[in-house]
Amino acid sequence: MKFLVLNGVNLNLTGRREKDVYGGETLEEINREIEAFVEGKGHRVDFIQSNFEGELCTQIQRAEGVYDGVVLNAGAFTHYSYAIRDAIASVSVPVVEVHMSNVHAREEFRHKSVLTEVCKGEILGFGKNSYILALESFLI
Amino acid sequence: MKFLVLNGVNLNLTGRREKDVYGGETLEEINREIEAFVEGKGHRVDFIQSNFEGELCTQIQRAEGVYDGVVLNAGAFTHYSYAIRDAIASVSVPVVEVHMSNVHAREEFRHKSVLTEVCKGEILGFGKNSYILALESFLI
Amino acid sequence: MKFLVLNGVNLNLTGRREKDVYGGETLEEINREIEAFVEGKGHRVDFIQSNFEGELCTQIQRAEGVYDGVVLNAGAFTHYSYAIRDAIASVSVPVVEVHMSNVHAREEFRHKSVLTEVCKGEILGFGKNSYILALESFLI
Amino acid sequence: MKFLVLNGVNLNLTGRREKDVYGGETLEEINREIEAFVEGKGHRVDFIQSNFEGELCTQIQRAEGVYDGVVLNAGAFTHYSYAIRDAIASVSVPVVEVHMSNVHAREEFRHKSVLTEVCKGEILGFGKNSYILALESFLI
Amino acid sequence: MKFLVLNGVNLNLTGRREKDVYGGETLEEINREIEAFVEGKGHRVDFIQSNFEGELCTQIQRAEGVYDGVVLNAGAFTHYSYAIRDAIASVSVPVVEVHMSNVHAREEFRHKSVLTEVCKGEILGFGKNSYILALESFLI
Amino acid sequence: MKFLVLNGVNLNLTGRREKDVYGGETLEEINREIEAFVEGKGHRVDFIQSNFEGELCTQIQRAEGVYDGVVLNAGAFTHYSYAIRDAIASVSVPVVEVHMSNVHAREEFRHKSVLTEVCKGEILGFGKNSYILALESFLI
Amino acid sequence: MKFLVLNGVNLNLTGRREKDVYGGETLEEINREIEAFVEGKGHRVDFIQSNFEGELCTQIQRAEGVYDGVVLNAGAFTHYSYAIRDAIASVSVPVVEVHMSNVHAREEFRHKSVLTEVCKGEILGFGKNSYILALESFLI
Amino acid sequence: MKFLVLNGVNLNLTGRREKDVYGGETLEEINREIEAFVEGKGHRVDFIQSNFEGELCTQIQRAEGVYDGVVLNAGAFTHYSYAIRDAIASVSVPVVEVHMSNVHAREEFRHKSVLTEVCKGEILGFGKNSYILALESFLI
Amino acid sequence: MKFLVLNGVNLNLTGRREKDVYGGETLEEINREIEAFVEGKGHRVDFIQSNFEGELCTQIQRAEGVYDGVVLNAGAFTHYSYAIRDAIASVSVPVVEVHMSNVHAREEFRHKSVLTEVCKGEILGFGKNSYILALESFLI
Amino acid sequence: MKFLVLNGVNLNLTGRREKDVYGGETLEEINREIEAFVEGKGHRVDFIQSNFEGELCTQIQRAEGVYDGVVLNAGAFTHYSYAIRDAIASVSVPVVEVHMSNVHAREEFRHKSVLTEVCKGEILGFGKNSYILALESFLI
Amino acid sequence: MKFLVLNGVNLNLTGRREKDVYGGETLEEINREIEAFVEGKGHRVDFIQSNFEGELCTQIQRAEGVYDGVVLNAGAFTHYSYAIRDAIASVSVPVVEVHMSNVHAREEFRHKSVLTEVCKGEILGFGKNSYILALESFLI
Amino acid sequence: MKFLVLNGVNLNLTGRREKDVYGGETLEEINREIEAFVEGKGHRVDFIQSNFEGELCTQIQRAEGVYDGVVLNAGAFTHYSYAIRDAIASVSVPVVEVHMSNVHAREEFRHKSVLTEVCKGEILGFGKNSYILALESFLI
Repeated sequence: MKFLVLNGVNLNLTGRREKDVYGGETLEEINREIEAFVEGKGHRVDFIQSNFEGELCTQIQRAEGVYDGVVLNAGAFTHYSYAIRDAIASVSVPVVEVHMSNVHAREEFRHKSVLTEVCKGEILGFGKNSYILALESFLI
Repeated sequence: MKFLVLNGVNLNLTGRREKDVYGGETLEEINREIEAFVEGKGHRVDFIQSNFEGELCTQIQRAEGVYDGVVLNAGAFTHYSYAIRDAIASVSVPVVEVHMSNVHAREEFRHKSVLTEVCKGEILGFGKNSYILALESFLI
Repeated sequence: MKFLVLNGVNLNLTGRREKDVYGGETLEEINREIEAFVEGKGHRVDFIQSNFEGELCTQIQRAEGVYDGVVLNAGAFTHYSYAIRDAIASVSVPVVEVHMSNVHAREEFRHKSVLTEVCKGEILGFGKNSYILALESFLI
Repeated sequence: MKFLVLNGVNLNLTGRREKDVYGGETLEEINREIEAFVEGKGHRVDFIQSNFEGELCTQIQRAEGVYDGVVLNAGAFTHYSYAIRDAIASVSVPVVEVHMSNVHAREEFRHKSVLTEVCKGEILGFGKNSYILALESFLI
Repeated sequence: MKFLVLNGVNLNLTGRREKDVYGGETLEEINREIEAFVEGKGHRVDFIQSNFEGELCTQIQRAEGVYDGVVLNAGAFTHYSYAIRDAIASVSVPVVEVHMSNVHAREEFRHKSVLTEVCKGEILGFGKNSYILALESFLI
Repeated sequence: MKFLVLNGVNLNLTGRREKDVYGGETLEEINREIEAFVEGKGHRVDFIQSNFEGELCTQIQRAEGVYDGVVLNAGAFTHYSYAIRDAIASVSVPVVEVHMSNVHAREEFRHKSVLTEVCKGEILGFGKNSYILALESFLI
Repeated sequence: MKFLVLNGVNLNLTGRREKDVYGGETLEEINREIEAFVEGKGHRVDFIQSNFEGELCTQIQRAEGVYDGVVLNAGAFTHYSYAIRDAIASVSVPVVEVHMSNVHAREEFRHKSVLTEVCKGEILGFGKNSYILALESFLI
Repeated sequence: MKFLVLNGVNLNLTGRREKDVYGGETLEEINREIEAFVEGKGHRVDFIQSNFEGELCTQIQRAEGVYDGVVLNAGAFTHYSYAIRDAIASVSVPVVEVHMSNVHAREEFRHKSVLTEVCKGEILGFGKNSYILALESFLI
Repeated sequence: MKFLVLNGVNLNLTGRREKDVYGGETLEEINREIEAFVEGKGHRVDFIQSNFEGELCTQIQRAEGVYDGVVLNAGAFTHYSYAIRDAIASVSVPVVEVHMSNVHAREEFRHKSVLTEVCKGEILGFGKNSYILALESFLI
Repeated sequence: MKFLVLNGVNLNLTGRREKDVYGGETLEEINREIEAFVEGKGHRVDFIQSNFEGELCTQIQRAEGVYDGVVLNAGAFTHYSYAIRDAIASVSVPVVEVHMSNVHAREEFRHKSVLTEVCKGEILGFGKNSYILALESFLI
Repeated sequence: MKFLVLNGVNLNLTGRREKDVYGGETLEEINREIEAFVEGKGHRVDFIQSNFEGELCTQIQRAEGVYDGVVLNAGAFTHYSYAIRDAIASVSVPVVEVHMSNVHAREEFRHKSVLTEVCKGEILGFGKNSYILALESFLI
Repeated sequence: MKFLVLNGVNLNLTGRREKDVYGGETLEEINREIEAFVEGKGHRVDFIQSNFEGELCTQIQRAEGVYDGVVLNAGAFTHYSYAIRDAIASVSVPVVEVHMSNVHAREEFRHKSVLTEVCKGEILGFGKNSYILALESFLI
């Protein structure tokens, strides 16, 4: 199987900012660990990060027919991007929403996700392992 | 006269997704019918689609002095893009808001448009004919 | 085909009050133009206006099996008459909601319609042409 | 004893519209069954239906001193008619509010009744039997 | 000068219901006192009462050009009738809103009037004298 | 047929507290009258009361396949126990919600029931007769 | 009889600011007209104005047993001073709330008065005549 | 390591009710699969289910010092039990919240969890695999 | 006199959890100090703690006629248990609500108590002395 | 030790107004009893009352370094004076908020205190004993 | 030019309380720096501080015709004093609202200012420099 | 020092649209004046404008380590872009939020900024001088 890990706005800074929230590993390092995990199970995974809401919509559209599953951390877009929500709803490839931090233990505005309703499931609070568990959800 | 039909995020998937909501014709096919209608009346029409909010703002800005009217289906941006709203308010070319589906009969978040207040009018619920009627509104 | 144009409360004053909002033509004059348009296309149209919510409900009930489409401008009832809403929902004849003004650019209480969800579509902001476009929607 | 069964807006369509909600019997047929039930117990019952809020207020006013109890299904007026509420509050004859359907399992706006506070009681969800049970409440 | 005192829904019961709120005089008796007051000052006054919202709208429309002022106690319609509000807004004859009781000391729903914004002024809490003071406001 | 009358928290005090609200008969006395009514019609009825939300859920679960109908007065749990709501939703035996008092004429928090949506119907305001009418609803 | 006209914060500027709202007469000039009116009827009136909420409370307390009625225009304190509200509630002398402008036709925050519930009545929208009518209310 | 899987109200019915939501396996069968998964990894797991909020609080208290992690599906208590929330906050053993269904795609009241803020993480939407992934989160 | 100190959910952990909030003494130690205080004044006191809402309701019911006063710290139930509220309202023995911490300086959900309205008084913020002061309130 | 009892707006009327709420003793009499209590324990107490919010702020500022504790009954200022709140927050002398009545059993607006969050504790509902208990809280 | 720096409630404590928020300089010291800045530019500045809302209103009224600009830090009055708002609106001298701290990064109630709408501009977050920048705004 | 002036969506139209709000100078002209001001003080400044939210996020990320301060006018993104908010929070370079107009005196939706909480300060209402004052804030 082939998966897409799609990271949204500001996640390119992971490991460089707010290390107490996100840990000290960079997105690149986390991606390498994810890749090792997935390939170790005999599958493949691609990685895309963008700060552009429109680009994220486009990538979700393109995932249709190409990937067996998408792991999406939309960053702050999670809380207001009905555009990304519609993109997810318009494809049949299952999308799992992940967050590294426990967003419900942070600011009020992070408690609401406009995406979850149209995702297959949601995993949050496990740091980089949120990605691993989301990919695991496609494999078990 | 010359018109612009401007489609927003995810509308490039029309005819491919949620066919029960949007019908089975692709955006391209719909555009061809619109074109035939407008040209049949002796006018011209251009078509632009973008998943990028910033691009839609830019296109609305550029419409000033170029088009006699804009027909805008902003997709999900309809519900939160104050940026597009400001772009519409900043030009004198009349903009008509359209939706193919009856957005008020769908999810709660689709009931509110932040755009209508600064548009000339709004037409919703007539499928592809929403575009035709909007263009007709400039001609009668 | 045969259509009904149904006007609600205070619309009998059109052309006599708030001319900056509704224009200077009386309802009677507007109806004559609508009639000319519809008959010019080979169809027929009836006109009813009432200040009584109960009468509007009754007329919508009676439209079933008699008309091919109803164009409804419910006036202020638009914003709170669940009775009219239920009347619309109880008939199979399609009802198109119209407003002459852009209600979303006026007072807050005019931003909400309790009717749209059960109508086929909505057209607003085009003055008397809102009626014409609504009738056109049945013909194209 | 003598009772009044008062039906409000659109209930004249019972049995003709939304049969999955209200069942297939007409209001006339239901009234005949109610009449049989009441007369079988040696009492009398009158029936009034109106689409006019003002008429319903007037009938409630007139019930004073004439009937021993009123069974009221106000239809959609239930949700916003403070006029009917005041009419009920102004008479000493007990009014029982009924609904054929379980209004709390339908649209959000049907969850709120402005009438119940001034009624003796409320019975909902039992189809035509809601009327029977309401009349029974006066007899046991 | 010539005035219209317009009473709305359920006010025909004044003096017969809730005497602790409205006093023990009937509407007819109150009207006679008002008439004596107005005629004593050399002016004329008409009285209309209706339980029908549509009738009240119609009467307000007709007051234009006929009366020098309207004193309106809309009863429970005060709290939700945007139809009456629009009728008031559509005429140039000044309308003064009155209430016999102090509506702000009663149920929550009576605290809000949708009419006041378009009236000339509001007088409440003085029993039958609310009408007298409202008429006085046209004369001083 | 066999029925269960299930009473919730604090209802064991009926007849001992707030007699102006609930009357002066004890729950035991009321149950005896209910029993007489049901057995007089040739059916059977069991009675359970508990102050424990968990116990009420368990009893509703156990009612499946045992009873032909459940009459439930959940007491204060009515207003917030989504646990009881889920228990009701999980069984196919019909549950009728009852209240002895007119809860809509009491404190604001009693106006909302989280149970009604998943019940067959609701009967409120008739004192002990609310139970009788609810059982009657299964028999007519 | 003896009355107190009590004016609150910023009302000392009447006639000097926002003349389109309050007219061009100064508070002193208005007070002279009020005095003439009251004394012409054989009664007496005192005038106090203060920008201090605490002073207004103290004056209302002191009015007890001294005046037969208080006419209060609390200015902006109207909208949030529960202190003045409590002062009014603590005395038995009747207080009539007045506003020169139609506060319901101005900013949203002016639509709510925390005082009305504990006043005898309210008169608003008649300019300086609001005071005259309020005093008249004590005399008729 | 040793884990506790704690199931709340109505989850004993899993596999017997609403199979379209929860699947057709019973809680017992799911527990056996979970046990096989955990023991296959060389760890141990206990299972407790209760319909009593108080019992769930007590079990969470007792987990301290006994288990290395708790997987909690509180059922409907999720949405209002601040008691369970406080129990979780009072222990240092990490608690992972799970839901078999995508609660954000169900009724509005299921969108809010009062527990997540004090849990380590949350996993929802993967059916019985939600439990497996939660346990996996302790092991990777 | 004889008093009951009734502690609710999770308060059995006092002194073991969140010591910065509740101090380091266990509930048992606090109870001993309270007992010494009460007995030192020549009165008697009993102590009950339960994690079960139903048990707390039952104990409040049983306090009637047995105790001269109840000191209640309901823990998290304070914020949503209308069942406990009804239990308090159903007995005539006075109940004083206490909290060790200043709940208004903690999370938002702790700011609202559904119990206070039916209690005699409330004391909060004085640690274990909140209990002592509550008992003192019965003695002075 | 030395304490300040600070009473806010309208509390100078205690014993003269609303005796059913506040009892029949005057503030002076209550203060004498408080003084006797405090001096009986070998401490000293001062008393200040003001109807001016600014004066109360100033007195709280001045209490710093002078008193060992402040007992504050801010009257109606309790519900909206962020100024007093800031004054309390700016001093290190502990302030205990008191109310003679159970404010949560009175009007809705009295349920919210903007002061409690920055006070040491709150005591309400014990009449004049609320002051005594607050002072006691500094001594035990 | 001549300016007024007007400080509101509790700001006399600047430099003595909450030094982490406001810095360690006293209001007097800050005023001296401001004075040096203004006089260095050849202009004059006066300073007034008051804890009394009424006094602040009076000073704003008096500023008319005397000062070329007012710099206002109303302290906690910012969030609810419609009296000060009206005072500002009633003068033509421009008022600039300042806050030393970033009020939007503090408690929720500090996020709303009722004054800004009627001020010329707002400057916040720059400590004592907020005053300097506000004065600079009059000079550039 | 080196600064970045970052302008968001539609601000490229400054001086061309809504001149009554923004003045008649173009963004280019304003930038030249800003540049003259900064260079006149011996510092440097760069200017970037984009209609793309993603681009603004990227530029804020890139400012880290390059600029000593950022002056940000995000345009309509101010009111909903949690993405830009997160970008600001992720860098240590101080960001000052500016608006040319007094956004609090315009439409309701412009009253809320989701950015201010994470900015150093905010300056609004001074036209092009808002930029100058923001830059000045870094220099004084």
